[in-house]
Amino acid sequence: MTPHAAVVLLSGGMDSATAGAVARDEGFEIYALSFRYGQRHVTELEAARRVAERLGARRHVVLDIDLRAFGGSALTGDLDVPKDTPLDRIGSSIPATYVPARNTVFLSFATAWAETLGASDIFLGANALDYSGYPDCRPEYLEAFERMANLATRAGIEGRRLRIHTPLIELSKSEIVRLGNRLGVDYALTWSCYDPTPAGTACGRCEACILRRKGFREAGMADPIATA
Amino acid sequence: MTPHAAVVLLSGGMDSATAGAVARDEGFEIYALSFRYGQRHVTELEAARRVAERLGARRHVVLDIDLRAFGGSALTGDLDVPKDTPLDRIGSSIPATYVPARNTVFLSFATAWAETLGASDIFLGANALDYSGYPDCRPEYLEAFERMANLATRAGIEGRRLRIHTPLIELSKSEIVRLGNRLGVDYALTWSCYDPTPAGTACGRCEACILRRKGFREAGMADPIATA
Repeated sequence: MTPHAAVVLLSGGMDSATAGAVARDEGFEIYALSFRYGQRHVTELEAARRVAERLGARRHVVLDIDLRAFGGSALTGDLDVPKDTPLDRIGSSIPATYVPARNTVFLSFATAWAETLGASDIFLGANALDYSGYPDCRPEYLEAFERMANLATRAGIEGRRLRIHTPLIELSKSEIVRLGNRLGVDYALTWSCYDPTPAGTACGRCEACILRRKGFREAGMADPIATA
Repeated sequence: MTPHAAVVLLSGGMDSATAGAVARDEGFEIYALSFRYGQRHVTELEAARRVAERLGARRHVVLDIDLRAFGGSALTGDLDVPKDTPLDRIGSSIPATYVPARNTVFLSFATAWAETLGASDIFLGANALDYSGYPDCRPEYLEAFERMANLATRAGIEGRRLRIHTPLIELSKSEIVRLGNRLGVDYALTWSCYDPTPAGTACGRCEACILRRKGFREAGMADPIATA
């Protein structure tokens, strides 16, 4: 049996690597998609490349899109990356690292690729529990995107149903770590930090580092990535 | 009174030029957005630049996005542009010029820009009457996009409502021509043809040329653009 194709959005972080492992575990043939969107650093794209290779992706496309043309986010260099946010404050408001409409742009390209592949499945590592409060990680947003995408494409017209899989949406960061371990994800290949040190280690102080540390700590495991 | 900002998607064609004129007529300050997405020719981007200038756009951003990475459309060079389709067959099925998820990708970027501008209004020249049968021009698609975009962004969370304006959605091509004339659109600046001749004139045979000709003929006007 030929496996079905699925487009997997890979950022290089632990969540998307785990979502990719779920897709592989469910028997999908993986078409990995990443973006060079004006991030402050390319470490995460190198991580995405390693993760795609380890997942055995059939193809890995890295698209150039310049979200810097619009500005408005710490991740594209306009604002400072917030540091040392207390854990109980993370997610309580939209932080400066929010990139306007990023998941919408990413999922739109995934929809375009799925359509040209004739694929009906897209995997996204969105998580609405231990997350930074981005509006485009909420389940109601993702359901609305799926509905829209089915109206946007041949798939909907031809009676196939395009499905946005978000296997991590209701998991805590430690549950994600445990799931990934069960599925053989090598988290040493992944990268989370928004603001690496000049020496190339994770800063340990941005929200991504804080949530990652929480995940490994609560899962009772050591993070294989070095932190400053 | 400072006019409100609106993002206007400008392709360089007559529909988006007319939608832009409606936005200007309604008092919006125009932020024009176009895409270099791997089109077969750049004539339409030159037209978009002229139209943006004539509309008095505050800014005109041309984003580079490579939809060719996925393939699957005559407009990005993978298939032949259909010619001489009978008028009564246009729109009866999805033609080869359909670019998978194109409006979704375009509207996603418009949503991102609107969010960084703090704008609540996006104008799109989509038309569901004299059109080529693309699924992403249908009113039910556009309503689903608007709903999704309001969940995707700060606008929705903060109680503003992002609105996708499609002032041409129910107009025939000749009604569009008449509306544009009333609003002072100079159609000599616009470009519709999918497949210009080597001499740079419109081919007169692709679906875009056929629909354009129908519009001017039924409006009882001459098209200022030369056709082969």
